[in-house]
Amino acid sequence: MKRILIVGIGAGDPDHLTLQAVKAIAATQVFFILDKGAVKHDLTDLRQRLIEEHGRQPYRIVEAEDPERDRTTPAYAGAVEAWRNRRAAIYERMIADELADGQTGAFLVWGDPGLYDSTLAIVEEVLAAGRVDFSYEVIPGITSISALTATHRASLTRVGRPVQVTTGRRLAAEGPPADDVLVMLDAHCSFAGLGPEWRIYWGAYLGTPDEIRVEGPVPEVEDEIRRVRAEARERKGWIMDTYLLRRV
Amino acid sequence: MKRILIVGIGAGDPDHLTLQAVKAIAATQVFFILDKGAVKHDLTDLRQRLIEEHGRQPYRIVEAEDPERDRTTPAYAGAVEAWRNRRAAIYERMIADELADGQTGAFLVWGDPGLYDSTLAIVEEVLAAGRVDFSYEVIPGITSISALTATHRASLTRVGRPVQVTTGRRLAAEGPPADDVLVMLDAHCSFAGLGPEWRIYWGAYLGTPDEIRVEGPVPEVEDEIRRVRAEARERKGWIMDTYLLRRV
Repeated sequence: MKRILIVGIGAGDPDHLTLQAVKAIAATQVFFILDKGAVKHDLTDLRQRLIEEHGRQPYRIVEAEDPERDRTTPAYAGAVEAWRNRRAAIYERMIADELADGQTGAFLVWGDPGLYDSTLAIVEEVLAAGRVDFSYEVIPGITSISALTATHRASLTRVGRPVQVTTGRRLAAEGPPADDVLVMLDAHCSFAGLGPEWRIYWGAYLGTPDEIRVEGPVPEVEDEIRRVRAEARERKGWIMDTYLLRRV
Repeated sequence: MKRILIVGIGAGDPDHLTLQAVKAIAATQVFFILDKGAVKHDLTDLRQRLIEEHGRQPYRIVEAEDPERDRTTPAYAGAVEAWRNRRAAIYERMIADELADGQTGAFLVWGDPGLYDSTLAIVEEVLAAGRVDFSYEVIPGITSISALTATHRASLTRVGRPVQVTTGRRLAAEGPPADDVLVMLDAHCSFAGLGPEWRIYWGAYLGTPDEIRVEGPVPEVEDEIRRVRAEARERKGWIMDTYLLRRV
């Protein structure tokens, strides 16, 4: 039997790695890495570093090219679905050809595998297709949500109150769905225009030496966030940011 | 200057500890522990074990008795507020009397300090009172949410869709506020009575050897969850459980 580990590696700080993840990396013979091209170079660098530091020889790294997702179509879920299918074909081939029976293979996933990540669904899809058999386990990781609230020393939740985790797209389309909203995957600063009753805790490249954070009432800091976001994106070639909105 | 670390230690598995938390524990001279009495014995045991394993001598453990929270009043937020005030007085005294300038003190917090935990607010309250001065940092931890979804190998989020994190009280009062709902702090199985379109991923004592999980359409598994929950609570004297509800 082949064994697959889907390992959450945290939000960007190599020290976000849990002891469980360290042990998982040490137990892995084959690491599967999908390269996302130059813009995500920093990300694959961290993965490589974690493998070098915690991997136990002999191990192999199997790299494949990540299929491009169509980001031009308005049919977001459909585009993601099509991209997942292409990714599943790559995963299936890698698991079938590169992992022997009795070996352990691992996918190292940003943040936590349960939070806006496709690896779980893709692995389920490969398994459901029935052409390759394996067992798999999920190892939780530090989310960018926890990294954000930790660096701001803010609580995600208020006593007895709910928080909604949502996407930039949803926020832009529907406005804040609750008094506490955690927004991920926002390419367009969809918080802009909210009134002074909304406080924002914004962060980018969380847990890394490039980490940036801005906090304040939205009208007072929205220009600053736009500016530092544009500058950082230009300089690094990519950006990953997230934020908490709180009606005070 | 005194330095305080608020360290997330994960959901129950000692291997949920991050390398950052391991380093924080090793850098600590005084650990502050509030004892919650017999029912929470297992919890303080894990804290002790983490300190013994990762603490660096010489360190001290300062214990205090946790004030009882009035759980009989319907004024939940008010009761929490009053309890926080009493806790703040204890924290203030411990930091003032037990931690010297230049030393590092730590509070080890279940899960993540940003998720339904009072330590951050209490530390802020102590600082705002201005009678004792210190700096403080927050170290993120594995949440019970990530531990739940990992053991179920389920994703918290679906592609491009939101998830609401809420409490058992809210769910009981208002019903599911979204198609994906993560419920914490539910003492009364408030999911009971939901229709077959709702799938539940339930877990208790996550990450520990006592971990229990049940998954299925609510009408099919609600009796089983009630039964195993009551049995486990009786046997161990306490229970911590959480669940994801998903409309399929």
